[in-house]
Amino acid sequence: MESRAGVAATPGALPYYVALSQLLGLTVVAMTGAWLGLYRGGIAWEGALQFNVHPLCMVIGLIFLQGDALLVYRVFRNEAKRTTKVLHGLLHVLALIIALVGLVAVFNYHRQKGYSDLYSLHSWCGILVFVLYFVQWLVGFSFFLFPGASFSLRSRYRPQHVFFGATIFVLSVGTALLGLKEALLFKLGAKYSTFEAEGVLANVLGLLLASFGVTVLYILTRADWKRPPQAEEQALSMDFKTLTEGDSPSSQ
Amino acid sequence: MESRAGVAATPGALPYYVALSQLLGLTVVAMTGAWLGLYRGGIAWEGALQFNVHPLCMVIGLIFLQGDALLVYRVFRNEAKRTTKVLHGLLHVLALIIALVGLVAVFNYHRQKGYSDLYSLHSWCGILVFVLYFVQWLVGFSFFLFPGASFSLRSRYRPQHVFFGATIFVLSVGTALLGLKEALLFKLGAKYSTFEAEGVLANVLGLLLASFGVTVLYILTRADWKRPPQAEEQALSMDFKTLTEGDSPSSQ
Repeated sequence: MESRAGVAATPGALPYYVALSQLLGLTVVAMTGAWLGLYRGGIAWEGALQFNVHPLCMVIGLIFLQGDALLVYRVFRNEAKRTTKVLHGLLHVLALIIALVGLVAVFNYHRQKGYSDLYSLHSWCGILVFVLYFVQWLVGFSFFLFPGASFSLRSRYRPQHVFFGATIFVLSVGTALLGLKEALLFKLGAKYSTFEAEGVLANVLGLLLASFGVTVLYILTRADWKRPPQAEEQALSMDFKTLTEGDSPSSQ
Repeated sequence: MESRAGVAATPGALPYYVALSQLLGLTVVAMTGAWLGLYRGGIAWEGALQFNVHPLCMVIGLIFLQGDALLVYRVFRNEAKRTTKVLHGLLHVLALIIALVGLVAVFNYHRQKGYSDLYSLHSWCGILVFVLYFVQWLVGFSFFLFPGASFSLRSRYRPQHVFFGATIFVLSVGTALLGLKEALLFKLGAKYSTFEAEGVLANVLGLLLASFGVTVLYILTRADWKRPPQAEEQALSMDFKTLTEGDSPSSQ
């Protein structure tokens, strides 16, 4: 399957699944833009169109970029661990900033229109996901990029980081679907049941969002597609295992 | 962590997480009943209340029982593999039948009221999930309970079965949230934003549904909580590995 010494071979089917995920992710972003352009009057930072900044930013940040950040370790299999880590962290920062712009847009829009904030299930899930995402980033940064954490501490935290990372991604996709549904029902109401073009387009967008989520999780969870430990990392782990067995030095 | 020979010890924290999952699952079922009773006039098979059979059956079948079916291998760690398998299969059949009743109820209700079928994102996701669930059950049955499949075929299919099982469960939770949101917006409309009691109750129910999903997945995916292979299974695998290496006999 893979050669342990030096450069490991990429599993045969992996590139096709990664290509599929990118095709789905980019289609979702493009289709969100098309939906907002065709049926919602486009996007602007001022006035009533400010609302539309929200779905576009959330889909780019918390769906597409967050998904791609999770895939970094599967795609860059032979680069130095540190480079891959930094890219993973940077993609998440970019996602966080874009999502923050999307959040500011919807709160601004609500204030401008005199609407209540945070009353719907979508908004409750959304705020929860955003806070969890921020906390996960902070904790991840302090364990894996900040040089202070010991090897054994990192090993113990890693599975939690992976589980909660995947969970927050799934919750993000679910929250996006709730938001899409809310936007549809508020505007279309009973017309939704007459198979209006906007409704059908948004339903297809919803299924594509879910498909992107499933594809990313499939790539992420396939045991034989995990990034193989590299020669120098393995040597390093051995050293640290010897050093930290039963004891955790506070820095490397 | 565990003694490989004979009865393996249950990981210390596992029972607490299982208890939490059951508490969340039962609360979700009870709260769905309370919501339908308090704000939707209760449940009946005839007349306008037939609709309410739908959410209750789906939550019992495709959320609670499906979730519990996934946990069977974590909870029954020392019973014979075959007993655990049969229980896993039976819970899924029960879930499927209850979900089917829920589906019939909503289609009946739509026909009676003259409403269109299958126009919303919730209904598209719902039908997709139901079909996937049924196919997964059939394929799972023919690979794992039917005696025809070879050991090597089972080993190759197992990770796919686990991934798609967890995915269908997550999609079920997502579809339930979409349905809840739809039911809320159709009835409350703009009143949703005034923090009506029904809206708040349903939002809390939504968060609990998501929490049940996350707890089940956490128990399911923790590597050190997986069911340890039992002494006789290990011996059996060895035999079959020797027998089937490079070759698959068509029956055991």
